[in-house]
Amino acid sequence: MKKNVAILGLGIVGSGVAQILLTKTQHFQTKLGFTPNLVKILEKFPEKFHQHNLDIALKADTIDEILNDKSIEVVAEVMGGTGFAYECIKKCLIAGKSVATSNKEVIAKHGIELEQLAQQNNVHLRIEGTVGGGIPIIETLENDLIANTIVAFKGIVNGTTNYIITKMQEENQSFNEALKKAQELGYAEADPTSDIEAFDTLYKLTILSRIAFGLAITPTELYREGITKLASTDFKAAEKLGQTIKLLAIGKRITENKFDIRCHPVMIPINHPIARVNDVYNALFVQGDNVGDVLMFGRGAGSLPTASAVTADIIRGLREKTIPQLNRSLSSNYDLQSTESIVGTFYLRIDSEDTERVNETLTAARIPIKTLFLQDNFIIVETDKTDEKSVQLVLQQLPQSSLFIRQEN
Amino acid sequence: MKKNVAILGLGIVGSGVAQILLTKTQHFQTKLGFTPNLVKILEKFPEKFHQHNLDIALKADTIDEILNDKSIEVVAEVMGGTGFAYECIKKCLIAGKSVATSNKEVIAKHGIELEQLAQQNNVHLRIEGTVGGGIPIIETLENDLIANTIVAFKGIVNGTTNYIITKMQEENQSFNEALKKAQELGYAEADPTSDIEAFDTLYKLTILSRIAFGLAITPTELYREGITKLASTDFKAAEKLGQTIKLLAIGKRITENKFDIRCHPVMIPINHPIARVNDVYNALFVQGDNVGDVLMFGRGAGSLPTASAVTADIIRGLREKTIPQLNRSLSSNYDLQSTESIVGTFYLRIDSEDTERVNETLTAARIPIKTLFLQDNFIIVETDKTDEKSVQLVLQQLPQSSLFIRQEN
Repeated sequence: MKKNVAILGLGIVGSGVAQILLTKTQHFQTKLGFTPNLVKILEKFPEKFHQHNLDIALKADTIDEILNDKSIEVVAEVMGGTGFAYECIKKCLIAGKSVATSNKEVIAKHGIELEQLAQQNNVHLRIEGTVGGGIPIIETLENDLIANTIVAFKGIVNGTTNYIITKMQEENQSFNEALKKAQELGYAEADPTSDIEAFDTLYKLTILSRIAFGLAITPTELYREGITKLASTDFKAAEKLGQTIKLLAIGKRITENKFDIRCHPVMIPINHPIARVNDVYNALFVQGDNVGDVLMFGRGAGSLPTASAVTADIIRGLREKTIPQLNRSLSSNYDLQSTESIVGTFYLRIDSEDTERVNETLTAARIPIKTLFLQDNFIIVETDKTDEKSVQLVLQQLPQSSLFIRQEN
Repeated sequence: MKKNVAILGLGIVGSGVAQILLTKTQHFQTKLGFTPNLVKILEKFPEKFHQHNLDIALKADTIDEILNDKSIEVVAEVMGGTGFAYECIKKCLIAGKSVATSNKEVIAKHGIELEQLAQQNNVHLRIEGTVGGGIPIIETLENDLIANTIVAFKGIVNGTTNYIITKMQEENQSFNEALKKAQELGYAEADPTSDIEAFDTLYKLTILSRIAFGLAITPTELYREGITKLASTDFKAAEKLGQTIKLLAIGKRITENKFDIRCHPVMIPINHPIARVNDVYNALFVQGDNVGDVLMFGRGAGSLPTASAVTADIIRGLREKTIPQLNRSLSSNYDLQSTESIVGTFYLRIDSEDTERVNETLTAARIPIKTLFLQDNFIIVETDKTDEKSVQLVLQQLPQSSLFIRQEN
């Protein structure tokens, strides 16, 4: 038996999904008792079919061709963007077709509405491919850990920035050198803004917060900070402190309805399970009230890893039509902690060598100093526990281009 | 709405499952639209109900009480053992009840038959709790990575031995000291044979091989070696070699139908993702043809972590009744590689300080020496690539109590 499937977009992920569906037919037949059958691909450039050795007969010219084909049960949206992709997902759901997508931006921005639409039309909106590439993060949070209240998560969810950070740390490169290398290798785009300014991380953080905590949250509510201010000095200093720096997506449940959710560079101890997740790898560290700590690690991007997740979702869409969906209706009854009120320890890189003066300034501001040393013509300070507001204020009294990095245990 | 559930056995895992089912009712109602409703617990000792603050009215005295209760849809078997547990699982499946179990021994020994029985009776036999405690290993291999042919896996799947190994490595303890400490902390049983001789690991390896490779494999077919011969010298020597020692469950696909499957102590590079999985933690490293490397890590045992997995399975049993099951029918068409024919590098600990003589013996046996040094009155050798048969043979010519450890990259 064959069950019909369509793909929207023949880019990096779409070509991977097509390849898996077309080459693993026997494998699927054995396990499932049916074969997912790729019947249409929406893609305007015919040359992409040649490039990926795909039959041009699969080409659909309009979304309507797919919407009007009643035999198509599941549609994989792997185009990216939020305009046309959003319209297509919406139309597919309304047409009674389940959707599997890897498009984090559209899900972060419109996922709440689209999920409601899916439930109303009794079809699935599956989003495993939106976070962590091939790592089964969504399914783990939603189903495997269903017996848990999620207490916290910390994740490295952007491969491009993790590659840059790894180069800065291991090879002592500047941010610009590492970015250039990432672009040469195709890990970073010509316009790298979405990655290095942590928009991509923010979208994934939004999705994780919805799934882990059940919050009706949107990206604009959450604190975001990219990696562009990091310097190789920070990595050298971190090493001396037994730590390393990672761009993390963090979510913490403070009380039942109060949460601390943010993404920014973080200094973490080198023995933390995610400290050694390097290069383009992603990882998510989750704490559940019953399961304790769980870590998932794998390739966070790339054609076939992400296609592996999208294909698993296509198959769930084909198999699970008849079972009631999990309730993904989200709560609007929550508070978010402002970053200013975070109490923790901080790393400061101060553009000065006048230790006496810096010491005085910090003491006057009641910033407790745990460690202070010189590194590459900067004063490095690790504080004891204090609140972020005090750190922000004292930074205004210190030389420009000084910065602080939050620490986590 | 309530859906009725029973538990067989009120031990470490059973009490955890009962606690989760009874305390998270609102949580489940919100997500699922129904509540799993614990109606019976098969347990002969009434004092266990008091011990865990459970209503004695839940007590069932015989399995028939549960079998005859038509309202019970899913039964969690968490007793352990292979006699009574096997009979109970069988009867539940035949009675049309889905079963969720954490009993690795019964699944390793009788899982093929029990799975067939489940499929015949159109109910689920769910086994997430059998491997890796709360880590969703089975579900990941079976569903999340369904778009992959599994190429290989390497896992630390026994918390007790990993705790002992960690103590030997980090605190320079002897095997017996570390075992005693594990027993004091309740990590090892009074009779620790099943853990330290790797029977527990073997059962989990058997289950992993079935799920990952689809093989109709039984424990007796697979090579097993425990950790009792390891000495603190081996850990010191490993450190000098930039490696560490772990008890691993290993499965590798050599060709489509030929596999290398075994469990024994392994020396791995310290930078391997599972090298730093310490104490009672478990981890599974999987390679899929599309997803690449995936690692899962978490608490491999304990009441609530394992109960988290069993409860997720109970809920799948309640929800997914109506969907066709995955085909778990297994292939008998496979060859297993003998350990003798493994080609790799080896660590040798030779009970001698006569380097000249040892060098001669190894050279005569054509064992290529990569490194040779003295450690604690032993000669330590790391070989270049050779076959295991040659290593076994040369060991017979070397002083008694010398040993070798296989290396993996």
